[in-house]
Amino acid sequence: MTDQTPLRSGGRAARRAARAKALPDHMRPIRPGMEGGTYKPLTEAGVEAIHRAALTALEEIGLADAPETGVAYLTEAGAVQGDDGRIRFPSALVEDALARANRAVTLFARDPAHDLELSGTRVHYGTAGAAVHLVDVEDNSYRECGVQDLHDAARITDTLDNIHFLQRPMVCRDIPDNREMDLNSIYACCAGTMKHVGVSFTDPDFVANGLELLHMIAGGEDKWRERPFVSNSNCFVVPPMKFATESCRVMEECIKGGMPVLLLSAGMAGATAPSTVAGAIVQAVAECLAGLVYVDAVKPGHPTIFGTWPFGLDLRSGAMTGGSGEQALLTAGCAQMHHFYGLPGGAAGGIADAKMPDMQAGWEQMCSNVMAGLAGLNMVYEAAGMHASLLGFCHESLILGDDLIGQALRCVRGIEVNDETLALDQMREVCLGGPGHYLGTEQTLSRMETDHVYPRLGNRSSPKEWDELGKPELVRNATAKKEEILAQRSRARFDAETDRAIRARFNIHLPA
Amino acid sequence: MTDQTPLRSGGRAARRAARAKALPDHMRPIRPGMEGGTYKPLTEAGVEAIHRAALTALEEIGLADAPETGVAYLTEAGAVQGDDGRIRFPSALVEDALARANRAVTLFARDPAHDLELSGTRVHYGTAGAAVHLVDVEDNSYRECGVQDLHDAARITDTLDNIHFLQRPMVCRDIPDNREMDLNSIYACCAGTMKHVGVSFTDPDFVANGLELLHMIAGGEDKWRERPFVSNSNCFVVPPMKFATESCRVMEECIKGGMPVLLLSAGMAGATAPSTVAGAIVQAVAECLAGLVYVDAVKPGHPTIFGTWPFGLDLRSGAMTGGSGEQALLTAGCAQMHHFYGLPGGAAGGIADAKMPDMQAGWEQMCSNVMAGLAGLNMVYEAAGMHASLLGFCHESLILGDDLIGQALRCVRGIEVNDETLALDQMREVCLGGPGHYLGTEQTLSRMETDHVYPRLGNRSSPKEWDELGKPELVRNATAKKEEILAQRSRARFDAETDRAIRARFNIHLPA
Repeated sequence: MTDQTPLRSGGRAARRAARAKALPDHMRPIRPGMEGGTYKPLTEAGVEAIHRAALTALEEIGLADAPETGVAYLTEAGAVQGDDGRIRFPSALVEDALARANRAVTLFARDPAHDLELSGTRVHYGTAGAAVHLVDVEDNSYRECGVQDLHDAARITDTLDNIHFLQRPMVCRDIPDNREMDLNSIYACCAGTMKHVGVSFTDPDFVANGLELLHMIAGGEDKWRERPFVSNSNCFVVPPMKFATESCRVMEECIKGGMPVLLLSAGMAGATAPSTVAGAIVQAVAECLAGLVYVDAVKPGHPTIFGTWPFGLDLRSGAMTGGSGEQALLTAGCAQMHHFYGLPGGAAGGIADAKMPDMQAGWEQMCSNVMAGLAGLNMVYEAAGMHASLLGFCHESLILGDDLIGQALRCVRGIEVNDETLALDQMREVCLGGPGHYLGTEQTLSRMETDHVYPRLGNRSSPKEWDELGKPELVRNATAKKEEILAQRSRARFDAETDRAIRARFNIHLPA
Repeated sequence: MTDQTPLRSGGRAARRAARAKALPDHMRPIRPGMEGGTYKPLTEAGVEAIHRAALTALEEIGLADAPETGVAYLTEAGAVQGDDGRIRFPSALVEDALARANRAVTLFARDPAHDLELSGTRVHYGTAGAAVHLVDVEDNSYRECGVQDLHDAARITDTLDNIHFLQRPMVCRDIPDNREMDLNSIYACCAGTMKHVGVSFTDPDFVANGLELLHMIAGGEDKWRERPFVSNSNCFVVPPMKFATESCRVMEECIKGGMPVLLLSAGMAGATAPSTVAGAIVQAVAECLAGLVYVDAVKPGHPTIFGTWPFGLDLRSGAMTGGSGEQALLTAGCAQMHHFYGLPGGAAGGIADAKMPDMQAGWEQMCSNVMAGLAGLNMVYEAAGMHASLLGFCHESLILGDDLIGQALRCVRGIEVNDETLALDQMREVCLGGPGHYLGTEQTLSRMETDHVYPRLGNRSSPKEWDELGKPELVRNATAKKEEILAQRSRARFDAETDRAIRARFNIHLPA
């Protein structure tokens, strides 16, 4: 569990070492799916007002550009297409879809130990995005990213306790053919991690191939449908209030193929969404409710994640920014709306505007990550590794994100209050004729590993120790850790026969 | 307000520039004293349980080592000294003192624009501590700190919008005589900033000299007593549950001299306080309630800050740690107890264990700072500049802390929900026959400066722009900013006559 060895020797150190070794899962201080919800950025009245505004927007403004199939599904369900082509949603229709929607979704992983149970205020952190650059910390530069970089991100994610899933964070810029890119993205992710994977499809026609590949990985369509371990991150809207025609058709195909769908509305507050935090949330909620009705019309109860992902904008430059306080509020406010509806939801946290994993990156990533967690967001996407307002992905930052998110998860776990933790008995023992300190009490020792989270690369030494250790550098140590991880064989690789079959069927770019 | 100029030219850019210039105080997106309280780490039952446990601890365990004067004050008030010498507090006595205590305290500043109004969930951030090292970022090293370093910290603080007060963050290690050190600390702080200052006294006998110096700075005792601009940071207890005999006498002298008192209980969870978050809060609350009764017995209604400052401990090494999630919970939980009592309160946030202002420092400082703010802590002490678990202070980090805390304050401000921010009218305009985006709406432009916080040194450029700008380095830019600030004359310096009089009376180490 820890990289540092206890400074004290003797019996206590031995007991500590023994404790540090074999902590069963249920005793670990932090776990995926801890319950947040102690932070409520919105008042109850605010939540209701946002809900009512979203319903009004759906009734009066509606959404343009639904594909023909979508128009059929939605009007059949009770939505109304106006002369302007927009689909408008009577509130009763939305309420009915809400009533039927899943309150809990399981996102399966190839290793069942990593299944994610999405419900209530249970919090999970993972990657996501469509970065086009890899951040090279040694060269202090950005370069185009490719399939090997994506695979490496998957392999690193697989080893990090606090990165709970891998949604594809980078685009394979070295694969010009979109079909090949989509298929190789699936391959690169799944061959790198046994955790749940999220991917996109650039064209509805590619979904069938994607499913074929997933059936091969799973060992058959039935096995895939039993435990679909890949979800579809689907930008089904082009904000403001327009369906993304092709993506909607991708969604329909994924639903038919049994793949969970992340309904992703990624407005930019001030550009494609209102500039106010509340307004951007209203629009995102309205768009995702439209998506929910759509999914319900295609297949009621299909596992769906309510993906209100409003992004911030730097209004001075008109450029996207994700590291701001406004972004943290957007995301936390969305989490509260998910709880209001009782829907499994996701949004973006952890984005850095900083170009490198520096102090700015640290404060930016922690701000939205810890607020998302405290707000009880089920899926915190883009939580680690994202720099330059989503344009760059950094492997070292992903590794450091494991420490950062571990700390955020400790905050999500919160403060337990009971007779033992209130510690009155200990206080009596220690103060009234006792040793006058708590260092050796059984409660202190027994809770050392079960209550406290220790950073792996974060340094807590004194200036003197730090000096004696040769002044360890955080980012350099992350690079060393990266090299250590990538020198090992991935446990997620497919068996030789499956791999040969996949390579015979598809043009796989990663070397065998 | 901004270092970046708008990328767009023409009329809009001109309007933006005009807006950016002259934003009156009440329109600024963030201000000192914004109201938090949306984050509640404790349930109501948890708060009550902590309160009851603290009352029980005061009744049954009590506090040892009160000075004779304190024994007299406290037993006269109704506390009971046992055969073991400990002072025990009947609950009714504590409740009476609570009922009489100030619900609001003004911490004055030499410049009234910087007065701090402490009440409810109003949040202020500032420095504090007793670091013995200055962090030299250029040399990547730690060295002993001195009076000039303290003065420089004061001067830097004076220029930073989001550092609202200066409690002495560093010890003048170059002044071996304690009396001279205390007096020179007051001089170095007050000559550097017009904001509220907090200081300590190492001996009750030094308080008279300190007050004499403050009377000279104020222009007379009456002026000092009218607007006392320096408070006494008073470690009146040695946890667990012992009065700090000499500090209590310092407190008595400060109360008589009209100086507000920060009742500071700095237990270390796992060493001098229980290792559990709840237990450490119980003990800190019990100790501060004892202090409150004490102050009330000396002078009812004296301005007092309820300073529950429990610190975290790395239980593996037994060393202090302040950058952890546990620390953020300790501090946020304390804030909630302050609100339960309706008392102005303070605790420690923003501590980094990191030795340098790196990514670790960023995530550590943001975690506790933003959680303290969201919890509505009145005074977030140690919020900027503190490294190596309080052993080192860093000027560059203080400057970067202004950006970090600005972002935290934006989160404290929260999400406004009203008809305008819900933006339904804008959505209608934009979507139904409008431009399809919000970039040019009046609401977007008018809120650019009033709603959004922009970092001063934090970088939001794209990778391409960043490259063209020569890859600006965060910490190097902070050093440049520091040099720019320190090249200017401090507005806080005393007039020549006052300064001569002070120097004639006391041995002032800073050059005139």
